[in-house]
Amino acid sequence: MERMEATTVRVGVLGCGNVGAALVALVHEQRQTVADRTGMVLEVAAVAVRDTSVHRDVPCPPDTFTADAAAVVNDPGIDVVVEAMGGLEPARQLILEALASGKPVVTANKELLAAHGEELYLAAAAAGVDLLFEAAVAGAIPIMRPLRESLAGEPLTRVMGIVNGTTNFILSRMSDHGATYADALSKAQELGYAESDPTADVEGFDAGAKAAVIASLAFGARVVPADVYHEGISGVTVDDIEAARAMGHCIKLLAVAERGTSVDGAVEIGVRVHPTLVPFNHPLAAVNDNFNAVFVEGEAVGELMFYGRGAGGRPTASAVFGDLIDAAGNLRRGHGAPIGALSDVRVSPIGDIESAYYLSIEVDDRPGVLSDVAAVFGGHDVSIRSMEQIGLGAEAQLRFITHLARESDLQETLRGLRELDAVRSTGSVLRVIGD
Amino acid sequence: MERMEATTVRVGVLGCGNVGAALVALVHEQRQTVADRTGMVLEVAAVAVRDTSVHRDVPCPPDTFTADAAAVVNDPGIDVVVEAMGGLEPARQLILEALASGKPVVTANKELLAAHGEELYLAAAAAGVDLLFEAAVAGAIPIMRPLRESLAGEPLTRVMGIVNGTTNFILSRMSDHGATYADALSKAQELGYAESDPTADVEGFDAGAKAAVIASLAFGARVVPADVYHEGISGVTVDDIEAARAMGHCIKLLAVAERGTSVDGAVEIGVRVHPTLVPFNHPLAAVNDNFNAVFVEGEAVGELMFYGRGAGGRPTASAVFGDLIDAAGNLRRGHGAPIGALSDVRVSPIGDIESAYYLSIEVDDRPGVLSDVAAVFGGHDVSIRSMEQIGLGAEAQLRFITHLARESDLQETLRGLRELDAVRSTGSVLRVIGD
Repeated sequence: MERMEATTVRVGVLGCGNVGAALVALVHEQRQTVADRTGMVLEVAAVAVRDTSVHRDVPCPPDTFTADAAAVVNDPGIDVVVEAMGGLEPARQLILEALASGKPVVTANKELLAAHGEELYLAAAAAGVDLLFEAAVAGAIPIMRPLRESLAGEPLTRVMGIVNGTTNFILSRMSDHGATYADALSKAQELGYAESDPTADVEGFDAGAKAAVIASLAFGARVVPADVYHEGISGVTVDDIEAARAMGHCIKLLAVAERGTSVDGAVEIGVRVHPTLVPFNHPLAAVNDNFNAVFVEGEAVGELMFYGRGAGGRPTASAVFGDLIDAAGNLRRGHGAPIGALSDVRVSPIGDIESAYYLSIEVDDRPGVLSDVAAVFGGHDVSIRSMEQIGLGAEAQLRFITHLARESDLQETLRGLRELDAVRSTGSVLRVIGD
Repeated sequence: MERMEATTVRVGVLGCGNVGAALVALVHEQRQTVADRTGMVLEVAAVAVRDTSVHRDVPCPPDTFTADAAAVVNDPGIDVVVEAMGGLEPARQLILEALASGKPVVTANKELLAAHGEELYLAAAAAGVDLLFEAAVAGAIPIMRPLRESLAGEPLTRVMGIVNGTTNFILSRMSDHGATYADALSKAQELGYAESDPTADVEGFDAGAKAAVIASLAFGARVVPADVYHEGISGVTVDDIEAARAMGHCIKLLAVAERGTSVDGAVEIGVRVHPTLVPFNHPLAAVNDNFNAVFVEGEAVGELMFYGRGAGGRPTASAVFGDLIDAAGNLRRGHGAPIGALSDVRVSPIGDIESAYYLSIEVDDRPGVLSDVAAVFGGHDVSIRSMEQIGLGAEAQLRFITHLARESDLQETLRGLRELDAVRSTGSVLRVIGD
């Protein structure tokens, strides 16, 4: 590497939980390597914590700790701020103050970005400094930077991610061990992969926030969590998983952002989170346990997938550290690479989404039933790709995978099926991604 | 996106084959999107070709074409140069001239980078401009930029890649269709995935050049193709693939670069290419057909994988286009991000490499044989992880997977086995990556 005069870059860290502490350790361990490669000596000059009396096993002197986070972001001796405290406030206010005083900011705070991303992007652009957040989506996986840089000129069509490790662990456990949803959730809680109140993960709120950030970056569009339709995995049963397997699929909770066209020809963005049937030969099917992956489709690039750890102190800190080196380098060179404003693009109502679907119905097993059922599908423009009958007589179940259909047509089809005398009940309805 | 005054960036393209032509088309198609997102209007101002009389179906006026590549790189009206001609000369000389005149260069030329990388990196550093080459390894997959930027502070331990689509297609075909090597190669040639002389691909030369580039970037070390031990796939049989499958593995041609420690405690880099047994539950096992993937392991980041198309005009041009936007942006901001010099790190001799191994031997099936065989392994510090016997009597074959062992010890073990009366012959020896 080229020899350069070493410049000291003073870093202020807000928060010293798993990620903050792992980051401070990484900065310490990699000090010499980073200096050799970049000519910059990174120094953690201040760490803001709630309670300075707690002993923390991190490699910095006791007087580095302070309870005054605002003083850290306003200290003219601090060059770069890392926000690792989480939550909306005071994180938002502190980041805005840091940016306003010309300090680049690195954060892993997906809730904040999803809720207030554009305000923060604009503040960074106005100050001409970086706001980097590689760790906010899919933890250690470099996906934000490729979307912002490598793929800046790529006509992207769809991004699909397994972006919540908790739900992927639960679904993997149900699939591999035949565990019920409740047992798999308990196991995830026991291993520390799920919170005692798992709602944010299992009902798709966390994945929805990440989907909003992904859609913003991939399509330069203003998308907030309230725009994101989401279904969680609490309704997925072992029977669903077995039925999917029999038809060559596994079930994954996917966050999907795709570019579409509205009826009047304008560009629309579809953004949603739901359990999805994924064919076994699709790369996303091989993403198991609490790993994350983001699958990107573009007109020129074809298909890309980025795979890695979505959470954990060290992996997340690794992504924050990469951003920190980048932000420090840009600061030294006198410019950031801000994102700036997002454009107003219509987010498709869920009824307008096109997808293939899996559905099952319990029927009376007698002549003519299939014909009546098929007529309902056909009457709503839903075309059947595959069908199989399970069981006989009073136990008969029909399972279908459709070709691409509009969500609203599919819902009409379900209503029509329920009105048939021969249909005793309808079961799970799950979206399917194609081969 | 933020509104900026549009700046025109004039691009000179050297070569108009698959990649060059696809790039010119992408620049044309994405002109407005790139202008909106970056404030830069990219304009292909010159395309150097061997023969200007050939009609080319690319969206630029006929007078854009010239046979004088040197005039393009020296034209003060050209801002950025894209080298898409391939080969060592005159590509090397033209890139050096472009860099010397302060023009950033984007290239996909892996042979050139592998052979003369450091000379080119130093020329870019001396001129303070970018030399970007995302497309040189694993085509459309963003892997160079993560290694240079996102993972700049990550203590990487190993990078393993499926970086040759031709051989991956052949191995997939042998595995999925039971095709022989010769038939699978014919099919690859028929589909245009393999050259009529396939040596560079099937004997591992192409993967070796990419391994050298990966090792340079991942470890900042000077590694040239001559440093890379390589074995190809022409000796892999359907029997090997079946035997691997029975033991829970598939066979992939992997390029491996790993950080190790020599006997005297110094850092060493191991770089090699060989057919490898990959457990079915490893993410690399799901990379099929002519797809590429790069699997990265680091102390903090854990495991990452980057998957996508390794070749093809449009996918490769997509990666070149991302670099072009980046180089143009850096030029406008007045700086590049050069790599500069590489450090002298010892490349481990192949005998010092540690790996697990698969090997098979044909033996006389009689009492005491296994004990004699096991004694040879033990006598050379090679420990057996699993063994199975296939067939009986004169047809008996023993198959082993070892724990980690030194290559030189494994070779000694093979010699020892061949000296046993009961061993009629030794079969394939293949390296194995662990679970």
